[in-house]
Amino acid sequence: MRKSILLPAIGLLLVATAGPANADEGMWMLHQVGTLDQQALKATGFQLTPEQIWDPKTSSGLASAIVSLGGCSASFVSPDALIATNHHCAFGAIQMNSSPEHDYITEGFLAKDRAAELEAKGNRVYVFRGYDDATDAMRSVLKPGLKPEERSKALEMKEKSLIAECEKDGLRCRVAEMYGGLNYYLFKTLELRDVRLVYAPPRAIGEYGGEVDNWMWPRHTGDFSFLRAYVGPDGKPADYSPANVPYKPERFLQVANAPLKEGDFTMIMGYPGKTVRYRIAAAIADDTELSYPRRIALYKDLIDIQEAQSKRGKDVEIKLASALKGLYNGYKNNQGMLEGLKASDLAGRKRALEAELTAWIKADKGRQAKYGDVLPKMEAILAERRTTAERDLIIGQMTFGRQGSMLGAALTLVRWTGERAKPDMERDNGYQDRDERSLRQRLERMQRNLDLQADRAVLRYVLGRAAALPADQRIAAVDAALKATGATGEAALDALLDTLYARTKLADLKARLAMFDLKHDVLLTQGDSMVNFAAALRKDLKAHEDESKRFDGELVTLTPRFIEALGAFQKTPLYPDANSTLRFTYATVKGYAPRDGVVYTPFTALAGVVAKHTGTEPFDCPQSLRDAAKAGPFPHYADPVVKDVPACFLTTNDITGGNSGSPIMNGKGELIGLAFDGNYESMTSDYQFTDAMSRTINVDSRYMLWVMDYVSKAHGLIREMGLEPQAK
Amino acid sequence: MRKSILLPAIGLLLVATAGPANADEGMWMLHQVGTLDQQALKATGFQLTPEQIWDPKTSSGLASAIVSLGGCSASFVSPDALIATNHHCAFGAIQMNSSPEHDYITEGFLAKDRAAELEAKGNRVYVFRGYDDATDAMRSVLKPGLKPEERSKALEMKEKSLIAECEKDGLRCRVAEMYGGLNYYLFKTLELRDVRLVYAPPRAIGEYGGEVDNWMWPRHTGDFSFLRAYVGPDGKPADYSPANVPYKPERFLQVANAPLKEGDFTMIMGYPGKTVRYRIAAAIADDTELSYPRRIALYKDLIDIQEAQSKRGKDVEIKLASALKGLYNGYKNNQGMLEGLKASDLAGRKRALEAELTAWIKADKGRQAKYGDVLPKMEAILAERRTTAERDLIIGQMTFGRQGSMLGAALTLVRWTGERAKPDMERDNGYQDRDERSLRQRLERMQRNLDLQADRAVLRYVLGRAAALPADQRIAAVDAALKATGATGEAALDALLDTLYARTKLADLKARLAMFDLKHDVLLTQGDSMVNFAAALRKDLKAHEDESKRFDGELVTLTPRFIEALGAFQKTPLYPDANSTLRFTYATVKGYAPRDGVVYTPFTALAGVVAKHTGTEPFDCPQSLRDAAKAGPFPHYADPVVKDVPACFLTTNDITGGNSGSPIMNGKGELIGLAFDGNYESMTSDYQFTDAMSRTINVDSRYMLWVMDYVSKAHGLIREMGLEPQAK
Repeated sequence: MRKSILLPAIGLLLVATAGPANADEGMWMLHQVGTLDQQALKATGFQLTPEQIWDPKTSSGLASAIVSLGGCSASFVSPDALIATNHHCAFGAIQMNSSPEHDYITEGFLAKDRAAELEAKGNRVYVFRGYDDATDAMRSVLKPGLKPEERSKALEMKEKSLIAECEKDGLRCRVAEMYGGLNYYLFKTLELRDVRLVYAPPRAIGEYGGEVDNWMWPRHTGDFSFLRAYVGPDGKPADYSPANVPYKPERFLQVANAPLKEGDFTMIMGYPGKTVRYRIAAAIADDTELSYPRRIALYKDLIDIQEAQSKRGKDVEIKLASALKGLYNGYKNNQGMLEGLKASDLAGRKRALEAELTAWIKADKGRQAKYGDVLPKMEAILAERRTTAERDLIIGQMTFGRQGSMLGAALTLVRWTGERAKPDMERDNGYQDRDERSLRQRLERMQRNLDLQADRAVLRYVLGRAAALPADQRIAAVDAALKATGATGEAALDALLDTLYARTKLADLKARLAMFDLKHDVLLTQGDSMVNFAAALRKDLKAHEDESKRFDGELVTLTPRFIEALGAFQKTPLYPDANSTLRFTYATVKGYAPRDGVVYTPFTALAGVVAKHTGTEPFDCPQSLRDAAKAGPFPHYADPVVKDVPACFLTTNDITGGNSGSPIMNGKGELIGLAFDGNYESMTSDYQFTDAMSRTINVDSRYMLWVMDYVSKAHGLIREMGLEPQAK
Repeated sequence: MRKSILLPAIGLLLVATAGPANADEGMWMLHQVGTLDQQALKATGFQLTPEQIWDPKTSSGLASAIVSLGGCSASFVSPDALIATNHHCAFGAIQMNSSPEHDYITEGFLAKDRAAELEAKGNRVYVFRGYDDATDAMRSVLKPGLKPEERSKALEMKEKSLIAECEKDGLRCRVAEMYGGLNYYLFKTLELRDVRLVYAPPRAIGEYGGEVDNWMWPRHTGDFSFLRAYVGPDGKPADYSPANVPYKPERFLQVANAPLKEGDFTMIMGYPGKTVRYRIAAAIADDTELSYPRRIALYKDLIDIQEAQSKRGKDVEIKLASALKGLYNGYKNNQGMLEGLKASDLAGRKRALEAELTAWIKADKGRQAKYGDVLPKMEAILAERRTTAERDLIIGQMTFGRQGSMLGAALTLVRWTGERAKPDMERDNGYQDRDERSLRQRLERMQRNLDLQADRAVLRYVLGRAAALPADQRIAAVDAALKATGATGEAALDALLDTLYARTKLADLKARLAMFDLKHDVLLTQGDSMVNFAAALRKDLKAHEDESKRFDGELVTLTPRFIEALGAFQKTPLYPDANSTLRFTYATVKGYAPRDGVVYTPFTALAGVVAKHTGTEPFDCPQSLRDAAKAGPFPHYADPVVKDVPACFLTTNDITGGNSGSPIMNGKGELIGLAFDGNYESMTSDYQFTDAMSRTINVDSRYMLWVMDYVSKAHGLIREMGLEPQAK
């Protein structure tokens, strides 16, 4: 599991079951821990109080040790802000510091001292600082009589003002919508901007099994790395500087020193990206029949393009590695999703549930008046959006899907300079003053991975798809640009691309950053072909965004009413869908039976790592590890039941993409490993969780320590975590 | 597991371990059952006495129900000689009765009454009639001073005379060598020549999983079929005739009606083909480094040729199906063998053992004098044979490997007519009067599968390989025939083939059978090109055979001395290697852990059969089965632990190719299923058995009955077995 590749479809919500039907289901908000059955928690092995997890009054507790990396989760594991996360979460930091001369991807990296820690440019660490209920503030703006787009606008304005107020204290804030708008919370984090790479194992350990084993069990991947967060000498967040000092976290996690066995209590805190557990039947049918097949084909094409480009040389290969990883992960993920949705007939089961719900609503006049219109209206919105699905896929690929591309940079520049002319509070989300630094850094950081030939090959593909859209879904700017070439078909495409790449300075870092500071109209008169094309395209995108806002404005009156109906229809309290806010999930160590005749045990072991070695990627286990393994047994790291150093383990925790790198803890809150994947059989767990099949795959802290101790000799780091290295 | 594809290398023997180190290891001769630890047997669940298995005094017992099909095993399951065996063992009988109009391979077959049972031409049923110790008689001919080839000759003569005497009583007899010649036994069987096909499930059940699942667990193959043996109205063996009546076996097996669970006692009686548990290190190194890689490449080439030919049409596909099955099985088997030998480093471990043994021998002057020369001499023989290994592979492919080919038929005719001119006792083994019927039938039966284009394609490949042999391994007849064409290279090959196929009548059944009765010199003056080429080739083959006899004559003085040395070196009694004689193996129902993180449970179930259905071969489960499965539960067939109809199950029985179709029985001697395969992880179990990994895969009798009952409605057969059908 690398990123959440869930379809960004509309958030049409419907409760799937009468509360979590599964014992371990639920990504709970931290204040909800106190509402869970404490006796049941204790019986499973939870030894803390809800306040020890997080105390809303003081905003203290274990949660202070949990951080977001923006897309991944992590945790402090030393008083000097040493951060444990997944290798695949630190991959960008490793990649940007690698070159054919210093191939840290292949060789791994260990800073010999603090000064040798490598800047992870653009990386951010967000330290949890609590959250407040903002429901009343937000919902107060939804005055009767507003049009849908006006509702969206009113919520946006309110959101911005709440954020602005919150960020006065030097925090980074966010308003998160829960239950489709029934509740809102204002989340506060401290944003640390000087992040450094401390340790990464060789890729053949950190990514052992590669794409073959991705999502698979049994697993033997040492998917862990260490970063460190720095602040200015004054203790405040600061940009990178050699003078900076390690951040001093309020809390850090201690590594457990007790063995772990099947049935033991486990809990995970982290930032799950997105789930759609309440998506309605019609939306799931669309996903199954239209969206996933389309998206799988798209990923396949993009993989082919990037693979072909990667063959041009080692330097190109390194530049494209990260994008390819994401594409492969998305491809496999989407295939698994599609298979799983089909096999489980989720659309059919939801249809049946919706029929029951509708009957229940109709059975009472009061209910009918209150909720009778909700589901039909949600389905109508879905039907309307379906008419532009192909165009929306391509627009997504031009913008969201290709932020590091030349066109993506041009679009950012056009929009940023345009928005900046407005008063701050009137600008689009993501283009306010508070966003300036990250936008600028994104423009800077893209240089590392920019390869013009590959960029053009992808853009050619995307424009080709745009040119082939049905008549009622055309993108005007693309049509106009192609027409302007005077050619048609493939020739027009090539002519347009020739123009776009011949007369642009965007590939030059300095020129690109200089444009960031230009006034909007000055930017447009520079004669930069890519920028001018982006400006034309911006009009199409704006129309697309306005349409989305209209839909959102409609949904915000529908979904909360749904939640009310559901609250009445069923008794159990519901957890909100994941939305990249901090969550708590508790569970146990547990294997599963993937199919008739086969049982997966919950632990793998070091011997299994060595047994998988074939000498060929992705099973090319480093000689150093194989040699080290021969020196066993390792009584300090070995598990009494496994009778070997445990490598990875399975739990029933309910997680999703974004949780990658999350600490997994025992009942005392001690670190026992890092979550890094879900299993293939539960790939649809973003839609549905089952006790039988949904599993989290974790790398065991004992394997992490063994690798650091015996293979990498990272003895200083082990001591920093308060432990004693064992290897001589 | 379809056939024993063990390398036919020399029987160089060495005890690998100090007796069976594994609890369930051993393919015991029936009289050895009494020497096993009876208390341990009883404790595991064995409820019979050794005499109830087989009583040497009266030659009675359960063994009377066990039959050999020549290459497969089977058992009587009704008083009217209904025979249960594997689908793949009855495949030849199904295939020869199939045509594009009556595709019993695909559709399955059920005789609506006895008269509708189909002749399985050429099939034989060999009923066990006991055996006698012939050690003294055989070894008495090994007079001092004989040359190796004279020793072979003397043993062969004695063997023939023992057989001739034995067969006076209307039996079919065989002298089997045990422990490399330390002991000899005279085995007696009753040969039944009228065998008929009674029932076969559709191929999609009987071969469910096909090549993908072959050797694999979890397994869901309904690998069973039923034959019936007939005799003349006088009760004596007879050729097929509508007037014949079912044979009345002395014993038949009753199907168990108790559930079966993990840990339960199981036993198998059957005809394991060949094991080499005592093969020496040098031979295993040769197998690993030379023989298997060569053979794998050969199979691959032959598969490509036959697959290409199969595409010519449905009729060709049916003709070549059986050969292709064998090739695929051999290919996968050989790959597994090679992997397993490498992974387990058997050669290395044997080398270590041999070093110990040699040291033990050297430590005592008496032992040194007695055994000191044995291992070096065995290694010298091996080295000598290695020099002609490539030629021997090709010769094997011309003769043994291609008995149903045109050249194979020609070689049979040349050799048969030549041998027939001699007094019966002086003829080669396999070419005596007693062999006349089976030789003639083989020539007849090959017509069903003969396709001239495919035959020529394979012969072209084999001759091409012969033409490419190194200078010191040439086959004179091939060289001469190619030279006689006046051409060279590919052109010579094609010219030779043109001649061979243009001027031969061998493809004509009548002409071929007529040649069988000709005198040798008359046969050679018929001007049949294929026959004349075979006659020339016969000289090369004779030299090859003489050389083999010389080696055998040497080994027969070495191996028994080795057994003596080993008997002194270790205490536990040893079981003899498998050699297609009736054996007994006891064990328990048991799963295994194929690799880190994975456990295979010992039972699969009907639900798993349905779950594997994809609609595409080899997982195209018939609609009739899937519909029938929906009507569950089936309390009569379901297992209380599995909670479903069990499909297949694993046991630790020690079997090998030839055991296919063997009945597997519970502690009372009741039928609980049929053995049909070994697992991939134990593919090298012909070399080595381990409790951890060696497993027999059986089809459960409850699945057999469920399929017959609910899918095929074979209710008459179920009643014939003394049971009551459940389906309406």
